[in-house]
Amino acid sequence: MTEREIVIVGGGVTKFASDRVDANVRDLVVEAVRLAVADAGVTLTDVEQGLTSYESDHFNRQMTLGAILQDHIGMVPKPNLRVEGGGATGALALRTAYAYLKGGLCDSIVVYGGETNGKSVTSATAQQFFALSSDADWEMMVGGTYTAYYATMIREHMRRYGTTEAQFAHVSVKNRRNAGYNAMAQKPMDITVEDVLASRPIAEPYKLLDCSLLSDGAAAMILATKAWARAHSQHWGQRPAVHFVATGCGTDTMRLGDRPRPYPGLAHFRGKRNAARQAYAMAGIENPRRQLDVAELYDSYSGVELQAYEDLGFCEYGQGGPAAEEGLFDFGGDLVVNPSGGLLGRGAPVGATGIAQAVEIMLQLRGEAGGQRQVVGARRGLTDTHAGTGTHCVVNIFEQRDN
Amino acid sequence: MTEREIVIVGGGVTKFASDRVDANVRDLVVEAVRLAVADAGVTLTDVEQGLTSYESDHFNRQMTLGAILQDHIGMVPKPNLRVEGGGATGALALRTAYAYLKGGLCDSIVVYGGETNGKSVTSATAQQFFALSSDADWEMMVGGTYTAYYATMIREHMRRYGTTEAQFAHVSVKNRRNAGYNAMAQKPMDITVEDVLASRPIAEPYKLLDCSLLSDGAAAMILATKAWARAHSQHWGQRPAVHFVATGCGTDTMRLGDRPRPYPGLAHFRGKRNAARQAYAMAGIENPRRQLDVAELYDSYSGVELQAYEDLGFCEYGQGGPAAEEGLFDFGGDLVVNPSGGLLGRGAPVGATGIAQAVEIMLQLRGEAGGQRQVVGARRGLTDTHAGTGTHCVVNIFEQRDN
Repeated sequence: MTEREIVIVGGGVTKFASDRVDANVRDLVVEAVRLAVADAGVTLTDVEQGLTSYESDHFNRQMTLGAILQDHIGMVPKPNLRVEGGGATGALALRTAYAYLKGGLCDSIVVYGGETNGKSVTSATAQQFFALSSDADWEMMVGGTYTAYYATMIREHMRRYGTTEAQFAHVSVKNRRNAGYNAMAQKPMDITVEDVLASRPIAEPYKLLDCSLLSDGAAAMILATKAWARAHSQHWGQRPAVHFVATGCGTDTMRLGDRPRPYPGLAHFRGKRNAARQAYAMAGIENPRRQLDVAELYDSYSGVELQAYEDLGFCEYGQGGPAAEEGLFDFGGDLVVNPSGGLLGRGAPVGATGIAQAVEIMLQLRGEAGGQRQVVGARRGLTDTHAGTGTHCVVNIFEQRDN
Repeated sequence: MTEREIVIVGGGVTKFASDRVDANVRDLVVEAVRLAVADAGVTLTDVEQGLTSYESDHFNRQMTLGAILQDHIGMVPKPNLRVEGGGATGALALRTAYAYLKGGLCDSIVVYGGETNGKSVTSATAQQFFALSSDADWEMMVGGTYTAYYATMIREHMRRYGTTEAQFAHVSVKNRRNAGYNAMAQKPMDITVEDVLASRPIAEPYKLLDCSLLSDGAAAMILATKAWARAHSQHWGQRPAVHFVATGCGTDTMRLGDRPRPYPGLAHFRGKRNAARQAYAMAGIENPRRQLDVAELYDSYSGVELQAYEDLGFCEYGQGGPAAEEGLFDFGGDLVVNPSGGLLGRGAPVGATGIAQAVEIMLQLRGEAGGQRQVVGARRGLTDTHAGTGTHCVVNIFEQRDN
């Protein structure tokens, strides 16, 4: 048995939006799969297995939606599964696709995910829905919401390292600016740090412009063994190949109050650090900031991105704030973070997010991101997602290789 | 790279019940994992990955429950994922564990699943909940319930083959009798075909005693590579080894009305036949009735079991009714079906069901089922589960092998 190399054959992402009144989650997923099939240059009937990614029955108003989507995209009667891991769902789906391919259960797989969070009636409704994914017995019951949990975490970061509100406001400015380079982004904005600081408080220190978006949208990706891609994709050999080289996963307690103290403490994402460690070992990465060229991080709140810089080893603990302020991870730096606009600028339909991140990395590694959005010479990229407050974390790594 | 052989290290199942007022889903899963750890003779801290199996946020009154259960059983900060496929959830979780192990993402994994369907306030509430897992746009909206969908399928079987209500009543009698041999079963009953026929109509031709149970319960299984099991299980070498040798999966449309006609038609489960075909090819099985000794089938309704006999190739199409009547798949036959009592007698907490079936097969292949429940000399066993009306089907095959 020879080593099975896993490649991305193609991917597609719908426009993320809060006003997709024209489309429900089924329509959105069909749209994304069609884009992925066209990008891959394959016939969907050749693809052997489906994998559905969505977070919740609530958000999509349907139970066992995986079976329905499998039918809507035309993959019945072939095998399917649904994977869920809160905010990490899309990345976990790709990780699981890797396992199915590597383990030989199939040679090709289409991973498709969507969510209609934008259709929540109001943002207050959305907060309540998301609160259902905190601990319903011990957190939601006392009125907890996710913005408040994240606020608690960044407050501890501020206390410990002197991180400032202006520092994490820089993340919001950068990502919303980057969204302007991406035609599929939900809400590009040309704003300043002062605009962020002056926006309405949600759960202090987080203000409206520190918070990511509520979105409707879908994303899809076709992955396969290299041998399958060579045999079935018309585009194979005509552009750089993107390999799926590593994946890591870590978990943490749902309740913040249950986490070990003082180490690593509330300021950090333990699960993310563990996920990154596994993925780096698999990819042979010792110095992520040097060895990676581009990364899509899970910026559910602006401060979370600078916390991720640290947990992923892009900088030392406590240096996330200064790094954001100095724009170390902006275009022109060693490592460009969130060229797509991230959750803050591109949007965040939960089940699609992790897949959309990987599609962005795919485009970057192929040199097809276009214009100002393209990270010049990108050869290796990472995606980072998490559920809850880092309760379930997945890091995936992709590499451009010669055919 | 040598072939990685996948084995069951151990498994455990809680008592299934409709009155577990002492336990919520977290407690039940902890109970099942403890049983599995003891049975496996391992230390849980040695196990590398967790995999959560449950069907719905609704049934358990919690979103992203996977993360919470991972913590409750003591598997944080290790990797986790949640898998869902309606009624096939537990078997799909095992199939995915197989992929993770075979693909080298881990060498050991604990799969745990539970559901608290028994806690539904009334069976009418439960019907409504389950209806959410039919097509919410096109079936549920017109008042569809699962008992009615299954009734439609078996009516077509009756029309085409002359199958009778008395024939499928035999399945209910057999499985509820078998439950009497199983101390963990929810509702053993000593009933006759006449009792089933005289019970209250639910959706004709299905009557109350043709319907499976609503249950609270959990099940867990530890799987690993053979090398890991040898190194970490105290019991390794002291009892027959049970190998996980094959898995298959098929899907079908959610709406019955969307299925191709006349072939295979409403009387049959197309996805199940596809799943079985794949699994048989993987296991080298040409004559399932001869080559299998024991099977746990998804008897959500009594008639579904005789439909499964046919789709799984245990008998010819149209012969399921006579086979049930003659007791071909009862103790003493070539192939014993549902020695545990099945969903009709043991119970059906959705996320646990497929895992509990596999635990039953594990016990049977080890010769540890005990007393009248043991299928003498069982060496190869199968589990069959499905979602919806065969919308998502999974078949897994296990084999006893010398150490």
